[in-house]
Parts: sequence; structure tokens; C-alpha cells
Amino acid sequence: MKLLPRSKFWVERGGEVVLSDWRVQLLEAVVETGSVAGAAHRLHISYRRAWGKVKEMEERLGLRLLVSQRGGRGGGRTRLTPEAEELVKSYRKFRAGLKELVDWRFGEAFPSA
Amino acid sequence: MKLLPRSKFWVERGGEVVLSDWRVQLLEAVVETGSVAGAAHRLHISYRRAWGKVKEMEERLGLRLLVSQRGGRGGGRTRLTPEAEELVKSYRKFRAGLKELVDWRFGEAFPSA
Repeated sequence: MKLLPRSKFWVERGGEVVLSDWRVQLLEAVVETGSVAGAAHRLHISYRRAWGKVKEMEERLGLRLLVSQRGGRGGGRTRLTPEAEELVKSYRKFRAGLKELVDWRFGEAFPSA
Repeated sequence: MKLLPRSKFWVERGGEVVLSDWRVQLLEAVVETGSVAGAAHRLHISYRRAWGKVKEMEERLGLRLLVSQRGGRGGGRTRLTPEAEELVKSYRKFRAGLKELVDWRFGEAFPSA
């Protein structure tokens, strides 16, 4: 049976998690579904939990992450603030290819694995 | 307050953890102290826990990791098998500089963090 490398990455502020794969997925799901309720549904978590996570991230970052637009056709949509968009973009850039890099490093160190 | 990248790495076999920073530290402590009891003392864990972890790693890897030498001056010493030495060496090679690489990637993605 083969040995396999595993890795996990996240971002902290003041010793607390502020961004992780899961948290960024949650923000992306808000963008794609247009609401926290839609994001919660997509990620199979409760609305309460999704909302709580967003609030926690906002508090830990000291930033507002979501803005709700009222009215318009089909009612309001929730979107990311420009700061949140920037954070999501940066996180995706940070994460892109990191797993592959770790896998490559593992292959170099464990040639027979 | 600054954002900081965090990362964690480990190695699995058949979906179970076999090597991690902590597990490799345990093996290295056996080498340095010459016994599982000495390693447990150094890592501030019980002998039972240290021994249990070694046995768990051996079972999951399907390899013997430790050999005890009887007798000699000052009694027996416990050492790593050649296979365990190779795994520790490979793990250290795998881990060397990975955190720095992640930090660098983070700096590229979050230039203002």
C-alpha cells in the first residue's frame, strides 16, 4: 500500500482562523447562490451555522464581508464587499498548486513510496 | 493585525496517519535518548502513550520500527530499524523548507498582509 502526502492550509489573524478552504467555499457559495441561505443549502449546513461563520470571519478580520442589495427583480441579492472579493481572490491564488507542490516534494523525498 | 499563513503536513497509508511532525519527533527522541521511556519523558507524554504510538505506526506501516539491544555497558539501547531510519530521513527531507515555501506563496498572494 502506498504512502501518500497530506496537507492542510489556512490563514490566521491574531491566532484565530480567518480563511480556510471551507470558509472560502462558503463565501464563494454566497456569490454563486446570491444569499447566505442558498450557500448554506449548497454546503449542506444550517442557515444559522453559515451566518455564524460569516459573522465570526467578519469579527476576526475586522471587516464587513457581505452586502445585501434590496429590491430589484426577484428580490435582493447578497454579494461580497470589495474587501471580501479581494480576500477570496488572494486565498485562491495562495492555494493554487500548493497541493501539487507538496506532492512533488513528497515524490522527491520518498522515491519508492 | 497581520494575516499569517498556517500549514500542516503528514503522511497517510490506507487512509490512516503514519508519519507526522510529532510522530517523527517521537522516533527521533527514541534515537537520542536510547529508549521509548526516555523519549516519552522528553516529549512529556506517558510511556504507555509513546509505546502505543510506536505500535500503531508499526501496524499501519506493516513494518517494525524499533529494535532493542540487550546488555552492554549501562544496559540495552533501543534503536531504529533501517526501515525506520529511512522513513525518518525521507520525512525530514519532505518537510525541509515546506513552511518557508508556503510563507513565500502567501506573500505573493497577499502582498498587503
